[in-house]
Amino acid sequence: MTAIFLASDHAGCQLKADIADFLTQAGHQVTDLGADGSASVDYPDFGYKLASSLKGDVAARGIAICGSGIGISIAANRFSWIRAALVHDVTNARLCREHNDANVLALGERVTGAIQAIDCVQAFLDTPFAGGRHQRRIDKLSDPKLES
Amino acid sequence: MTAIFLASDHAGCQLKADIADFLTQAGHQVTDLGADGSASVDYPDFGYKLASSLKGDVAARGIAICGSGIGISIAANRFSWIRAALVHDVTNARLCREHNDANVLALGERVTGAIQAIDCVQAFLDTPFAGGRHQRRIDKLSDPKLES
Repeated sequence: MTAIFLASDHAGCQLKADIADFLTQAGHQVTDLGADGSASVDYPDFGYKLASSLKGDVAARGIAICGSGIGISIAANRFSWIRAALVHDVTNARLCREHNDANVLALGERVTGAIQAIDCVQAFLDTPFAGGRHQRRIDKLSDPKLES
Repeated sequence: MTAIFLASDHAGCQLKADIADFLTQAGHQVTDLGADGSASVDYPDFGYKLASSLKGDVAARGIAICGSGIGISIAANRFSWIRAALVHDVTNARLCREHNDANVLALGERVTGAIQAIDCVQAFLDTPFAGGRHQRRIDKLSDPKLES
């Protein structure tokens, strides 16, 4: 059982509900951070809520959804402890865990269908980080520095 | 003519070269920030170099490449003036400009073929930002705040 936080804007609420059902049935502890879909909202607010919820909890996972997944993935990645991977298929959902130790899966409800998205969630949760040379790169993502 | 900065790790060098050729022939001013492909390097270093090069220049564009595009897109998005969109197809390359005013296109050499990637670059450069309600969200991406 993994603690999983879900966040989306209005354009990701249906897929968020589908994923919540899937995760709950699989026995995970799911927290829905909104939006509730009743009004147009701004995806950065929900990306930032997700980042706040994951701060200091290395075992927790997040799933971030907007229309394309692009906006909310940019928002979540503003914070050094978030590694949000925008994926559209199972191969990339696997790679983001193996190589990037992603703790957030970003999806786009308007570009990826629900069945494929749920397969991505399954791969994201099932795949371990490969470590090795990848760890050094993860450490650098946790300590961003402007370089010239 | 747009100033375009290219950055990749070792796994993105061939696609970076193909895109550089395409952009140069199209008359753009291209700067290759490395890597040169001769050794294994760490994608965050090159994502951070790209962020440094784009700081303060709202008209410039960046193209960031690694094996999957995931790692270097996370790295670039650590900085508030970067909106890096990881795309695998022309539809998302268009959407990231219309909705997210993306200034960096992130691509994965090992997951997206060169012809498709170059079509993505073309769409990224050709598509204007739609403005309107999207501007408020872009402003929030420029001023990240943890929210509970």
